Amino acid sequence: MSELMSEAERLDAADGLAAVRERFVLDDVTYLDGNSLGALPAHVPDRVADVVRRQWGELRIRSWDESGWWTAPERIGDRIAPLVGAAPGQIVVGDSTSVNVFKAVVAAVRMAGRGRDEILVDATTFPTDGYVAESAARMTGCTLRPVAPAEVPSALGDRTAAVLLNHVDYRTGRLHDLPGLTAAVHAAGAYAVWDLCHSAGALPVGLDEHGVDLAVGCTYKYLNGGPGSPAYLYVRHDLQDRFDSPLPGWNSHAEPFGMRPGYAPASGAVRGRVGTPDILSMLALEASLDVWDGVSVEAVRAKSLALTDFFLRCVGEYVPEGRAESVTPAAHAERGSQVALRCDDAGDVMRRLIERGVVGDFRAPDVLRFGFTPLYVGFADVERAARVLAEVLAEGSAPED
Amino acid sequence: MSELMSEAERLDAADGLAAVRERFVLDDVTYLDGNSLGALPAHVPDRVADVVRRQWGELRIRSWDESGWWTAPERIGDRIAPLVGAAPGQIVVGDSTSVNVFKAVVAAVRMAGRGRDEILVDATTFPTDGYVAESAARMTGCTLRPVAPAEVPSALGDRTAAVLLNHVDYRTGRLHDLPGLTAAVHAAGAYAVWDLCHSAGALPVGLDEHGVDLAVGCTYKYLNGGPGSPAYLYVRHDLQDRFDSPLPGWNSHAEPFGMRPGYAPASGAVRGRVGTPDILSMLALEASLDVWDGVSVEAVRAKSLALTDFFLRCVGEYVPEGRAESVTPAAHAERGSQVALRCDDAGDVMRRLIERGVVGDFRAPDVLRFGFTPLYVGFADVERAARVLAEVLAEGSAPED
Repeated sequence: MSELMSEAERLDAADGLAAVRERFVLDDVTYLDGNSLGALPAHVPDRVADVVRRQWGELRIRSWDESGWWTAPERIGDRIAPLVGAAPGQIVVGDSTSVNVFKAVVAAVRMAGRGRDEILVDATTFPTDGYVAESAARMTGCTLRPVAPAEVPSALGDRTAAVLLNHVDYRTGRLHDLPGLTAAVHAAGAYAVWDLCHSAGALPVGLDEHGVDLAVGCTYKYLNGGPGSPAYLYVRHDLQDRFDSPLPGWNSHAEPFGMRPGYAPASGAVRGRVGTPDILSMLALEASLDVWDGVSVEAVRAKSLALTDFFLRCVGEYVPEGRAESVTPAAHAERGSQVALRCDDAGDVMRRLIERGVVGDFRAPDVLRFGFTPLYVGFADVERAARVLAEVLAEGSAPED
Repeated sequence: MSELMSEAERLDAADGLAAVRERFVLDDVTYLDGNSLGALPAHVPDRVADVVRRQWGELRIRSWDESGWWTAPERIGDRIAPLVGAAPGQIVVGDSTSVNVFKAVVAAVRMAGRGRDEILVDATTFPTDGYVAESAARMTGCTLRPVAPAEVPSALGDRTAAVLLNHVDYRTGRLHDLPGLTAAVHAAGAYAVWDLCHSAGALPVGLDEHGVDLAVGCTYKYLNGGPGSPAYLYVRHDLQDRFDSPLPGWNSHAEPFGMRPGYAPASGAVRGRVGTPDILSMLALEASLDVWDGVSVEAVRAKSLALTDFFLRCVGEYVPEGRAESVTPAAHAERGSQVALRCDDAGDVMRRLIERGVVGDFRAPDVLRFGFTPLYVGFADVERAARVLAEVLAEGSAPED
């Protein structure tokens, strides 16, 4: 057994979160793609079956009240809240991240008011945020300016209405300075919208503590809510009365069953709702959140850093220098819960890794992504992934087949 | 046994769709609320369990390709297409009806181009359509004018960009003249957007035949897709290249995994997508659509009219005159698949009906709604519902409790 394998054993034995792995359905695959789709919590299938067979099949329409369907978006929002440092009543679940980006950016521009007609967007953002921000700009008479997150402070000005940023970069795994950037945005009189897709569930976010204005995120990565599970929208308490949604569906009406022809927005987080919520996906997410019972985000963050540190060390030991280069920051303060390695033949390498039971993913044009979900990834997984990666890279490029 | 009970027996015995009822999970409740939430098809729980346990739990991220998750929105759209008279390649499933109304109305206004700055909306519409159309108007520089559907032809003009109409009114069950109104909208050079929530799955729609431009609908009523199952968007083939979405998420990009900073829309129905689809809700819907195997929409329509005719007759026989008045048109050409009865104490009456196992719903301020899903409602159900209604009404108002 190599020294790193022994070390992995010791680290796993000392891991206070090791037992949480039992809450998930896993097999002998080394699954490092939880930053794309979280693994299945073991108790979820029975919960979903109950929703389908009893709540839908037997209670039918009565479930909107009796099974709590109608209030699910806010109730589940309050389950997510502590994971992102939010007090209750500020998060509503529903729609996709893209749709929530649209709501948040348009609402932020409207809060900023006349005279502010520029939106800044993270130039390295996951593409959908940029596309949707462009549409929000077009529809509110603003211009959109892509800016690298580090350049945001110098780009801010009297015209800035809103700034849309990613907490963790989807490609490089870089963690951006949410407290500092939010403060800079506020100092310029603008509104900060944060996309938490790659941070929520992996590290502390501190939405309330840092005075974030609006935030969105998906729930199928580190929150393990299932494929395409609904996203969420955070609107800070004191901004909720000014949240003017571009998607004012009947679910956000003050009196949704009043069937009134004129729109009057509800108070609170409910105002972020639009149409009828997708109950099956939503209640699977709600069930999934039970894996967090007794787990602190701080413990998750500590393990996440230990995992990514160990992975970088194993890669350094096993992989020939220059064959794959980390584009993830070495500094803890700048690292999320994934490691991205740049490698010319990344697409081919990932295909071969997956064939050998090490699942990460490939992001065009040349990035190997490995996500480390502290709830179910152990140090032995990390060592194995680096070792198999080194084997694959040592073989060179595969012949075309 | 009364004469109407005997007649119900004869009608059920002669019903060519009677056997389809076996495809659903039903009990001794008389369920006349399928126009709000369709009943559970019996094979769906096992299909959903497979999606959760095997596709998510075992294949995990591989299911995006191997289980066909990625292409589900278009594939399921093509399953819905024949039910609404559309050739393949024009319908995409995803998001809520409200979000799709926003896409469709904004896109219609953009197709209409400059100089056309008025949107007409059905003044009797389900509220969300009006709220969302108001937002679409506000964000495209248009004015919104509510008009009764019958008044649309005279309200159309050179300024009309788009007209948003309901095929069947959610409250009264009135079926509007889709072919005639669409032709009138086209004659004025405007675009017709139809909301099919209360018609799809209950009667022929003929989207292609009548040259409808854009349409939206939900899937949890007569399509039985499950609570909050995703909605759909129809964009006519020859308009797809001009469909300019206000919600251009990465799922509608020509190269979604190219991760390009600039948006380039995909061709075809895919262009109507936004973010990651809610797979559990979506694949439950896909499974549900199997109940349509061997069932023609024409047969469904014939039975639907027979059911509502029979209900109106039973109500006429059993219910004292003046106690509950139908607001649903008597003419077949103007009737959807529900009957709405106006009654002063409708809320209380519906509560008592439900206590006795007859489930319809109440719509403020004074309407009792009874929906008739021909796939699983029989004539004995209809007779029983009218009889129990008469009993409840004969008792007068319940004391306050």
